[in-house]
Amino acid sequence: MEVATRVALDTAEDLAEHYTPGVADQAKRVADDPSLLARETVKGNSVAIVSDGSALLGLGDRGPAAALPVMEGKAALLKRFADVDAWPICPVSREPDDLVRTVKDLATSFGAINLEDIAAPRCFTVERRLHDELDIPVFHDDQHGTAVVVLGALHNALKLTGREPAATSVVIAGAGAAGSAITRLLLHAGYRSEGIVVCDREGALHEGRDLVGEKGWLAENTNAGGITGTLKDTVRGADVVIGVSAGGLLEADDVAAMADRAIVFALANPDPEVDPEAAGRHAEIVATGRSDLPNQINNVLAFPGMFRGLLDSGAPRVTTHMLLAAAHALADVVGEDLAPGYIVPSVFDEALVPAMAEAVVGAAKAADS
Amino acid sequence: MEVATRVALDTAEDLAEHYTPGVADQAKRVADDPSLLARETVKGNSVAIVSDGSALLGLGDRGPAAALPVMEGKAALLKRFADVDAWPICPVSREPDDLVRTVKDLATSFGAINLEDIAAPRCFTVERRLHDELDIPVFHDDQHGTAVVVLGALHNALKLTGREPAATSVVIAGAGAAGSAITRLLLHAGYRSEGIVVCDREGALHEGRDLVGEKGWLAENTNAGGITGTLKDTVRGADVVIGVSAGGLLEADDVAAMADRAIVFALANPDPEVDPEAAGRHAEIVATGRSDLPNQINNVLAFPGMFRGLLDSGAPRVTTHMLLAAAHALADVVGEDLAPGYIVPSVFDEALVPAMAEAVVGAAKAADS
Repeated sequence: MEVATRVALDTAEDLAEHYTPGVADQAKRVADDPSLLARETVKGNSVAIVSDGSALLGLGDRGPAAALPVMEGKAALLKRFADVDAWPICPVSREPDDLVRTVKDLATSFGAINLEDIAAPRCFTVERRLHDELDIPVFHDDQHGTAVVVLGALHNALKLTGREPAATSVVIAGAGAAGSAITRLLLHAGYRSEGIVVCDREGALHEGRDLVGEKGWLAENTNAGGITGTLKDTVRGADVVIGVSAGGLLEADDVAAMADRAIVFALANPDPEVDPEAAGRHAEIVATGRSDLPNQINNVLAFPGMFRGLLDSGAPRVTTHMLLAAAHALADVVGEDLAPGYIVPSVFDEALVPAMAEAVVGAAKAADS
Repeated sequence: MEVATRVALDTAEDLAEHYTPGVADQAKRVADDPSLLARETVKGNSVAIVSDGSALLGLGDRGPAAALPVMEGKAALLKRFADVDAWPICPVSREPDDLVRTVKDLATSFGAINLEDIAAPRCFTVERRLHDELDIPVFHDDQHGTAVVVLGALHNALKLTGREPAATSVVIAGAGAAGSAITRLLLHAGYRSEGIVVCDREGALHEGRDLVGEKGWLAENTNAGGITGTLKDTVRGADVVIGVSAGGLLEADDVAAMADRAIVFALANPDPEVDPEAAGRHAEIVATGRSDLPNQINNVLAFPGMFRGLLDSGAPRVTTHMLLAAAHALADVVGEDLAPGYIVPSVFDEALVPAMAEAVVGAAKAADS
């Protein structure tokens, strides 16, 4: 990745305009009216991709140096798919206070922030504080991005299997950043708290367990029926399983015990929660995170369009309405090609980013009015 | 300014290589050997241009928003003249501890740091702490850049007027970041502490005044003769005046009272310390910071070549030997065109950046051996 200039700097006149003394006038105007920054500087189209590398891909805590090539790759995707100018920032800080301070110190230079691969529960604290304290959108891809793609894919899967959200039972395997964000978005999208059970390694989250923080919230706001037991127990009879945990937790028999026309999203990377081929013998729709199988549920379907929309809207923060609108736009791009093996669009579908960006801008405008 | 990608992202195979799963291998390799970062990521060719806007151009304290277009302009110059990828970062933090912490949090992503337009004396504290605590070079353009260009120009001016550094008397008007850095570099370049007098608004710095911090250091290490009095008093009989202070402090009569074949660098912007035309009637060589006059002494002559050399060398810090080597390289690029009205090369001279970069790399190698 490199930087490119949009202005000519070939003559003394060019220098006088873009360096001294010309830039002094621009500085004075911006000091009087900082809203000019988004129109006149790199801020208007730029994103800081921030990761401390504490939960890097599926690799665990590998630190900021290991995170840099990953975040640079992501910046390249943002440019390629959404013409967004992103820069990778990999802080050595670990304390939420320090991470928040660093990101706030960056915020003048960027139009939005992408938090990435920061370990839970620290990622929740950092994201919520920045959401509250900054005047630019803070998008946590492991939460918001994953939730948008999953909701969009699930929307299409329900359509194919003749279900409505309010009457669909969903088991979410994994209570980290992704599982939590998916749950919160489903609750806003018409899925009912009776219909959602979230499982961690100990099994179903319910109010009888001694849970605090994010897991405490999940126990209070899902599983209204108070279901207890292991993941395998919970999956029995469910319409949908969404795995955002670890490979090999379920077997073909578990999928066979689900409801008819079952939907299985086994998204753990590189090894899905259940063998996709075996699951496909019992479920109507199977999706994974793998690029070599149909229905790849990957955040690259969401974050380019989200950031294009966030920057185009000039919105000061990410809202639930934006996430819902983006998920539905993503689902609708599939259009008439919708099939059990094609519930999300290709990342190379040129309609995807504009459709999602438009949805985000529309949601931002609706919030203003 | 924008970001550009250097890799193709047009097929599923491209994505597999540069995003998931390919990037995981790169992350693991980098975690094992962080020295790979400089070769394999954006770090190897990138610079963070950091300013809090507290001493912006000649405008005073205008804050980080006003600084952003200025630093973006500077990033564009670094790309244009030295193919360096720079990103402007304008922190809201003001306390040295906070600025240091933020810059340290950026350091994984960048190959070097450019501090810019941070008010004295805070800039000294921040620069020295970062110099000591980081393993990438920290270049403070208001100190290092200015000192390199001034020393290079002075080298050529002495050549034209038949002087040697050790026998030359220099008055420096201004005891801020620029005046201090120029003084320190002159002391390393063969100018003698007896031959240098630094003045602030109260006049000559000398040990009889109650001075602390940087000014205290200057009083101890210059003006061995204990000269007292105003700037005008001090200038009388001097060979060289270097103004890095404010417009209109001197008059033509003051220049007339200098030594024969006097050298006047009146670098305050936009109004020089003395009217250049009037000064030219009494001095042999006059230089200013203005682009519409001969001998424009401007940092853009120094920072592109310095950063090219710093990044190419992989040096962990800026050294005095690098600054001296760069200043002499800058002076030598003028070559046979040397004349009282042409003591520094044009910024568009294509030999300039390679010559300075080579000098910096050479100084870095000499330090290693």
